[in-house]
Amino acid sequence: MSSIETSFNNLLVVGSMAFDAIETPFGKTDKIIGGAASYIAISAALYNVAVKIVSVIGNDFDENFLAELTRRNIDLAGVEKKLDQKSFFWSGKYHNDMNSRDTLITELNVLADFNPILPTPYTDVDYLLLGNLSPSVQSSVIKQMTIRPKLIAMDTMNFWMEIALDDLKHTLSLVDILIVNDEEARQLSGTYSLMKASKIIREMGPKYLIIKKGEHGALLFYDDKVFSAPGLPLEEVFDPTGAGDSFAGGFMGYIASKDNIDFETMKQAVIAGSVTASYCVEKFGTERLLQLSPENIAIRREEFKALGSF
Amino acid sequence: MSSIETSFNNLLVVGSMAFDAIETPFGKTDKIIGGAASYIAISAALYNVAVKIVSVIGNDFDENFLAELTRRNIDLAGVEKKLDQKSFFWSGKYHNDMNSRDTLITELNVLADFNPILPTPYTDVDYLLLGNLSPSVQSSVIKQMTIRPKLIAMDTMNFWMEIALDDLKHTLSLVDILIVNDEEARQLSGTYSLMKASKIIREMGPKYLIIKKGEHGALLFYDDKVFSAPGLPLEEVFDPTGAGDSFAGGFMGYIASKDNIDFETMKQAVIAGSVTASYCVEKFGTERLLQLSPENIAIRREEFKALGSF
Repeated sequence: MSSIETSFNNLLVVGSMAFDAIETPFGKTDKIIGGAASYIAISAALYNVAVKIVSVIGNDFDENFLAELTRRNIDLAGVEKKLDQKSFFWSGKYHNDMNSRDTLITELNVLADFNPILPTPYTDVDYLLLGNLSPSVQSSVIKQMTIRPKLIAMDTMNFWMEIALDDLKHTLSLVDILIVNDEEARQLSGTYSLMKASKIIREMGPKYLIIKKGEHGALLFYDDKVFSAPGLPLEEVFDPTGAGDSFAGGFMGYIASKDNIDFETMKQAVIAGSVTASYCVEKFGTERLLQLSPENIAIRREEFKALGSF
Repeated sequence: MSSIETSFNNLLVVGSMAFDAIETPFGKTDKIIGGAASYIAISAALYNVAVKIVSVIGNDFDENFLAELTRRNIDLAGVEKKLDQKSFFWSGKYHNDMNSRDTLITELNVLADFNPILPTPYTDVDYLLLGNLSPSVQSSVIKQMTIRPKLIAMDTMNFWMEIALDDLKHTLSLVDILIVNDEEARQLSGTYSLMKASKIIREMGPKYLIIKKGEHGALLFYDDKVFSAPGLPLEEVFDPTGAGDSFAGGFMGYIASKDNIDFETMKQAVIAGSVTASYCVEKFGTERLLQLSPENIAIRREEFKALGSF
């Protein structure tokens, strides 16, 4: 269960690549690498799948980071570089409890008119993960697939529920799994009970729903089954940025590596996502994820097993 | 694991017996039976242990409820009846999220000068559970024990941290397990991280710490080990009153029935507490707990097992 298998299954990741400037009670950063696709790709690649990224960057992006991704066998042919614009930039400050944050700056830049055209070899991937983007961009990617992937997962956020609910509902009708946090699940369903919310959301399209609960773990809903993954109690959450994306990346990386979507594999994949997310928050940005070895992954998976078994 | 064994181990429960008037988004009650000792005793008795209660009631208490407890083999010789006073009365209103509530009325009545004197056969019980009471009352009970129980557990609340912190710290130095919720653990330790809080609190005395997280389950800390029990996702939480007490009662009832305090038994006991608490919230007050059969307990224990296993 803790072994990591080599696999040639493809995982296509569509999402932002960005600069973030982050302030937490533990310190602050200058511009560092961020963006959903960055966290997702690094996390998924830990499970030895062939990750391809579709994203957009500006003339200021970090070439060293791109080289680092390439060394991890991550295919960047779908990363468009706009030479006349800057990369997406986000700056935020976390409150003391680390559960809430204020956005200080959002500069969309290249992301403002992001309209991804998939390179031909990308249109028949096995697995597709749509990071948090406008629902119309997400659905346009699905429509470019010439063969439907075995599994399509998506993230979203409150913002899209508020300004593009109809688009979001259309995209939801096209995917297999929605991955959101508890607050987002409550807003999307209009109900507080997560059990009720899971039914309402799955009637919108996705057969599977994952609700991330931060330090409290995650819930996986499918049919009449529920799985609860524990949250690993940590001494410190240093920087929560990217935790949700590294969860999604670890989850889909595991699924693609096993090339299996039965419920037992999904449960293991939720643990895989919990493992990468729990490492992600230990340092700023992608720093900790970039240090991880297969041994680190195996060790923490065992910690999760010990934590929840009775 | 799902079987319930007959046992002659004693569990002494010290706590309030009260009237509550409760308002939730689902409805409101007149005065119904409440109080920590009521919830604890009913829950513990489901695990076939010989429960004894030390408490105090007024001239207005419900004789039918006392008869119901006696039918469950719960010993009421330590329940003092003050004929010239009324029973403790609490009234509260829950907010829509069910996670917070406003206290509308607190009439201490008989509880104001509660100073329990233990009947002689109560001073050498095997297991002792101190419900939420003033820390000086809790420690006075411990000092009346002629033989130290195999395990002493206690509950407390923010109120005592604010007005009687020194007394609370003294009582903590005398017990084996503290059972509190996450907010209380954070206030008592002065730190947000539950991992850090668990160390600080255990340095105050109790070797074991249980942190209840409501819908998110519970954490058990001992030595360098942590166990995370999942929260059962429920369609509705009808009335959260007594959930914490029914958790504590199920927990200690299970421990006493097994007459074992190793970590594996403790983990099973946390699940037992989660089972009774999850039933408790399904109806107002003690109503649901009073309907439960051994089969109900076994069924829900299996639900918890399925929920968290991977």
